[in-house]
Amino acid sequence: MRPCSNDTVLINLPNINTKRSWGISDLQSLLPAFQLDSAHEPTSPSPESLHILKTFAGFAEGSTDTESLAVLAFLYLYLCICGKDSPCIEMTVWSQLPTGAGLGSSAAYSVCVAASLLTFCGRIADPGNESTEASRWTKPELDLINRWAFQGEKVIHGNPSGVDNAVATWGGVLRYQSGTITPLDRVPKLQIVLTNTRVPRSTKILVAGVKDKLLKFPSIMEPVLESIDAVSQECQRVLEDMVTDMSMDHYFVLEELIDINQHHLNVIGVGHPSLDKLCQVTASHGLHSKLTGSGGGGCAITLLRPDVDPTVVKAAKQELTDCGFMCWETIIGGLGVSAHSPSSLTDSVLEALKSN
Amino acid sequence: MRPCSNDTVLINLPNINTKRSWGISDLQSLLPAFQLDSAHEPTSPSPESLHILKTFAGFAEGSTDTESLAVLAFLYLYLCICGKDSPCIEMTVWSQLPTGAGLGSSAAYSVCVAASLLTFCGRIADPGNESTEASRWTKPELDLINRWAFQGEKVIHGNPSGVDNAVATWGGVLRYQSGTITPLDRVPKLQIVLTNTRVPRSTKILVAGVKDKLLKFPSIMEPVLESIDAVSQECQRVLEDMVTDMSMDHYFVLEELIDINQHHLNVIGVGHPSLDKLCQVTASHGLHSKLTGSGGGGCAITLLRPDVDPTVVKAAKQELTDCGFMCWETIIGGLGVSAHSPSSLTDSVLEALKSN
Repeated sequence: MRPCSNDTVLINLPNINTKRSWGISDLQSLLPAFQLDSAHEPTSPSPESLHILKTFAGFAEGSTDTESLAVLAFLYLYLCICGKDSPCIEMTVWSQLPTGAGLGSSAAYSVCVAASLLTFCGRIADPGNESTEASRWTKPELDLINRWAFQGEKVIHGNPSGVDNAVATWGGVLRYQSGTITPLDRVPKLQIVLTNTRVPRSTKILVAGVKDKLLKFPSIMEPVLESIDAVSQECQRVLEDMVTDMSMDHYFVLEELIDINQHHLNVIGVGHPSLDKLCQVTASHGLHSKLTGSGGGGCAITLLRPDVDPTVVKAAKQELTDCGFMCWETIIGGLGVSAHSPSSLTDSVLEALKSN
Repeated sequence: MRPCSNDTVLINLPNINTKRSWGISDLQSLLPAFQLDSAHEPTSPSPESLHILKTFAGFAEGSTDTESLAVLAFLYLYLCICGKDSPCIEMTVWSQLPTGAGLGSSAAYSVCVAASLLTFCGRIADPGNESTEASRWTKPELDLINRWAFQGEKVIHGNPSGVDNAVATWGGVLRYQSGTITPLDRVPKLQIVLTNTRVPRSTKILVAGVKDKLLKFPSIMEPVLESIDAVSQECQRVLEDMVTDMSMDHYFVLEELIDINQHHLNVIGVGHPSLDKLCQVTASHGLHSKLTGSGGGGCAITLLRPDVDPTVVKAAKQELTDCGFMCWETIIGGLGVSAHSPSSLTDSVLEALKSN
């Protein structure tokens, strides 16, 4: 994000070929419709304010495409966070996450937009980005970023759980139970292959299907949800143990838990033949996978134990790619939102940002 | 079974190339070691009596091959059921079931041997086999057959559950809960494809693995067992409803229950990649499958709804055969042990029986 001088606000989203700008005075004219909190506390988007923004930006009332949702979330956060300050800015967001694949790309976007706007307007301190290391905000500042990002998520999803923006804010691993989100204190970084089956799915339809099954077979499904909960608890215990003791046994337990969880997710009806195929391919290379996100297609993670031969990983990735899937080697348990110095950006990203 | 006149007892098992005969006086010399019940109630095989039989038949102490187990079970049932009568008989058993595939072939064998011997010795009435229809014994007679067959199963398996011999005796569908076996009153006959993956497995090792998982992850595994129990209860309810109402909806519920159960069996560790492959193949034809028996390979059943196009079944069977599996179309819920007239036997069976 950088200031600009021609009394405009510009949002540039090169990954989805979106570039929009508006005059400051036009934006300011919208402000009276937004009930801003005098203590700068996050405020939820009302149907009225969203309607006003859609009309302003020229989007149809029911539009759910990535471009309109991203622009609406930006406008909402800009107006609410910056308020009467109305700074002239130019914001470019570059993302390496595929959209609509259940990887929380909208939350990552909302968190970045909220963090930049809050920092630019002085609501939180600039963590500095001169070193090549990524800089992070303080805990209370991250909490504010998270709560604003949650409002952006509401603009995009209507009724999000808040898990995705919390993960994007805090990083690491979170515990989500009965609506309460708790970051785990210390967790190991785990190497994974992230695979996108490229099978599109609808979270809403999947969630409705799970509810139907629960109503249809309560005595069968309730114990499965109980077992899924126990899998999460056991996983938390193992991850916490791994911080002090990196024994390979912990990885074998994680692999068992991954398999059990994947079977349970099939039982509750969020599996897909493409995910079965993916699990079968990785299993044939001795690797264990489970879906991530809402399932029904979308993405899966494959755990890579430290002792796995790189040629095995390469062969598995090749076979997955041959199935029409897309693979990335990455980690889970990494940093949350951070400020990076321009010098830490790769050439390809800098090039993409410059050209816009 | 037929009487013979040369003071011998002969057992002929053409499917496993086994033919053995003994002199009546040699067999009678064994009788003092067998504690026969004066009321002809079934008696459990003691280690001592089994040792005597193995020595008599010339089998090594630890032999577990099909031939020795089948011969020992016959000898035990002959001596205990016929007692001092010691009839001269020639028994030929022809089976269409593969052995060691988890289909209960040993129980079917024990039930047939027990039923024939009990009938021949007049312990139960001859149900007559003059009509072309199969004839059945009375309930108390079937109960006696079942309890003697259970002793044969003990000779073969050591510590069987009694489920297999009960199914082979009573037919239909049974409920097995907390060690109690209850035949369901009325059940529909269901068309299935029975597929043998031909992957050999050990029930003992599989059962030990399930116990290990239960000890390792009790909070995860106990709810799964609870859910499996609920699947059985729901299945019983649907089967009972189907007797009066053959609506297609019941079949769709059975298909859902089959899928859920198969996933659960994977969680408790009795799945196998060959069974995954089998389920995947049938699913690609819109059919639903689950393992049967102890799992870890062995056999699976695929439900055929009445509305399934025969060309679909044919294509699925062809694809399964191409995987190296063996398929049969058959039914579940059929008759239990029955007496057939010779005229109801197919030519190929008659030929096989005559040539021995």
